[in-house]
Amino acid sequence: MNNFQFKNPTKIIFGKDTIKEITTEIPKDAKVLLLFGGGSIKKNGVYNQVKEALKTVEVVEFGGIPANPEYSLLLDALKVIKDEKITYLLAVGGGSVIDGTKFLSAAVLYDGETPWDILTNNIRTEKGMPFGTVLTMPATGSEMNSGAVITRRETKEKLAMGGPGLFPEFSVLDPQVITSIPQRQLANGLADSFTHVLEQYMTYPVGGLLQDRFAESILQTIIEVAPKVLKDPTDYKAAANYMWSCTMALNGLIQQGVPGDWAVHGIGHELTALFGIDHARTLAIIAPSHYAFNFEAKKEKLAQYAERVWNVTTGSTDKKAQAGIDKTVTFFHELGIDTKLSEYTKDYEGTAEIIAKRFTERGWLGLGEHQSLSPKNVEEIVKMAY
Amino acid sequence: MNNFQFKNPTKIIFGKDTIKEITTEIPKDAKVLLLFGGGSIKKNGVYNQVKEALKTVEVVEFGGIPANPEYSLLLDALKVIKDEKITYLLAVGGGSVIDGTKFLSAAVLYDGETPWDILTNNIRTEKGMPFGTVLTMPATGSEMNSGAVITRRETKEKLAMGGPGLFPEFSVLDPQVITSIPQRQLANGLADSFTHVLEQYMTYPVGGLLQDRFAESILQTIIEVAPKVLKDPTDYKAAANYMWSCTMALNGLIQQGVPGDWAVHGIGHELTALFGIDHARTLAIIAPSHYAFNFEAKKEKLAQYAERVWNVTTGSTDKKAQAGIDKTVTFFHELGIDTKLSEYTKDYEGTAEIIAKRFTERGWLGLGEHQSLSPKNVEEIVKMAY
Repeated sequence: MNNFQFKNPTKIIFGKDTIKEITTEIPKDAKVLLLFGGGSIKKNGVYNQVKEALKTVEVVEFGGIPANPEYSLLLDALKVIKDEKITYLLAVGGGSVIDGTKFLSAAVLYDGETPWDILTNNIRTEKGMPFGTVLTMPATGSEMNSGAVITRRETKEKLAMGGPGLFPEFSVLDPQVITSIPQRQLANGLADSFTHVLEQYMTYPVGGLLQDRFAESILQTIIEVAPKVLKDPTDYKAAANYMWSCTMALNGLIQQGVPGDWAVHGIGHELTALFGIDHARTLAIIAPSHYAFNFEAKKEKLAQYAERVWNVTTGSTDKKAQAGIDKTVTFFHELGIDTKLSEYTKDYEGTAEIIAKRFTERGWLGLGEHQSLSPKNVEEIVKMAY
Repeated sequence: MNNFQFKNPTKIIFGKDTIKEITTEIPKDAKVLLLFGGGSIKKNGVYNQVKEALKTVEVVEFGGIPANPEYSLLLDALKVIKDEKITYLLAVGGGSVIDGTKFLSAAVLYDGETPWDILTNNIRTEKGMPFGTVLTMPATGSEMNSGAVITRRETKEKLAMGGPGLFPEFSVLDPQVITSIPQRQLANGLADSFTHVLEQYMTYPVGGLLQDRFAESILQTIIEVAPKVLKDPTDYKAAANYMWSCTMALNGLIQQGVPGDWAVHGIGHELTALFGIDHARTLAIIAPSHYAFNFEAKKEKLAQYAERVWNVTTGSTDKKAQAGIDKTVTFFHELGIDTKLSEYTKDYEGTAEIIAKRFTERGWLGLGEHQSLSPKNVEEIVKMAY
């Protein structure tokens, strides 16, 4: 097990009808900026519950934050924060709204030239404006971590930021919000959280026995509840386990002391940039090919995964490892998610070379658990995913 | 799954040679009270490492805190804190030293009549004096939770306290400390942490699928590493997994959204009070009888435990459940821990009645996951444990 440092101070408020509890979490004298997305919260009742809970504090609203939170729009929100002398941020939405709020939390206290520096210069935020979240879409885990990904359309950049100052002070997780999420988004959330776990688990063994088992626990739970969540989002037991699994998948716990991979995300982001494919679906396209390409390096963990998560108990290590990949593909298919690029676009030829070129131009640092995957390797992985 | 609130802000610094990292965790202008136990840290090198890391701050020492931290002795430490104008506490030890430090953290800021009020009146500590810990004995989980148990010899009381102000700011977990722990203590730590998990798991199903699997993960990991830890405490991989498992067993995570039992601890404490039996060993005496006595209520979980943790895959629910109890007894035996009261004392006759009477006199609130176990039930459980 590798050495590690772990601290996660976010307070989770989990369960039925818990949105009202934000009243006691936000300082009485706060002036709150309420941030949200496209307005679905006004249809599903969440907006009314939040407004009711906030009725004793002053509230300014900023809606319309899109998927892949856009920098220029966030600058408008930043101006509101400064003009209105906002003291507290409340994100009501999914990963994009929460990530956008994290950017604002950092940007409002940043005294450099332009807030974009935080992303391009990789500036760690030690202290941000305090904020809380009300999660309306389980998937990214942003509600209990200190990272964010921000998109800037004018420069076609999608960059990450973070730091210990960007943990939400609290996050409200009411699994009942799932009932109003479209099937496609639910499937995406399941595939996204599943792949988050794989990125932190499907590497090489370092003796993190407990971390491995925790990762397997989340995978098993997602597999168990996935068909139930898709069939009947009002199944509270399934919804609650789905929501808690998404949070635990990326709140930092299972990555402690073990290597991470994250190549699937690195390559997948390019497919979103090039074709506009949903983030989660790009992961389902890349993951099987990534594991097949790196079979030798990952087969021990793949076999362990097949055995413990999918109950594949017979056969050689190689056979089990291959079964692990096959089972993963089948799982994505059962979520209604295609796993080949050609199923998403007719224009897939040449994609591998384009992505390899983009990585090369960006100044290659290497992908994967050993930072050893070259642009040429990435090209091959993407070709295998056609 | 039940509603829950979860927040755990302790920073964990885990791994080889990490004691030196406390230098950056303690404020530069702090005046530190270094608290420790019987002096084993002066033999195993931990004391020197801590002193080296603290050489830039002012340090006062207070050693000699015994197992089951004693109130009267802690009052002496409290006087030192006040006289010396201490601003930061550093516990270097196992659960007892850390629990004692938590009491001091609360007591120094308590403005009531006597600090014992905190325990007898169950006063939640919202804010304590900041403190960190260097863990030298994995077992209790106190390094990453906000609870403590304090003993007062003159009144024969052993009471619990806690509150959100009593999380350590940081805890250093260097698994190498295990190499100097006597076998008996190692076995106790394994049994203690194992039973901590059982208390939060062996109840009745409420659909906490992920929580169940996390609990099972910790149990499986303890079972896997236990013989290695006992055979060779220098086996770093085993030591690291043992240490991290003990912390995760009682840092609040696995108890979220599910019922807890804790009757085994409630009854076990009495055996320590009456016979001076090691805490962990009292748990090994009581747990099997408690599960046998409450077999009908717990058999579903016992069977799940037998199946998932012990790989008992055939037989009826009843058969599997019984196998779960039997496997637990065998596990304790393999740790070298006896599971019958008569193996610890010849004077066991009448113990059940004495304990039942003590519970009755104390004003009975009920033990177990439904708070429904009566003193008469406790009497029967203890008799089964003779």
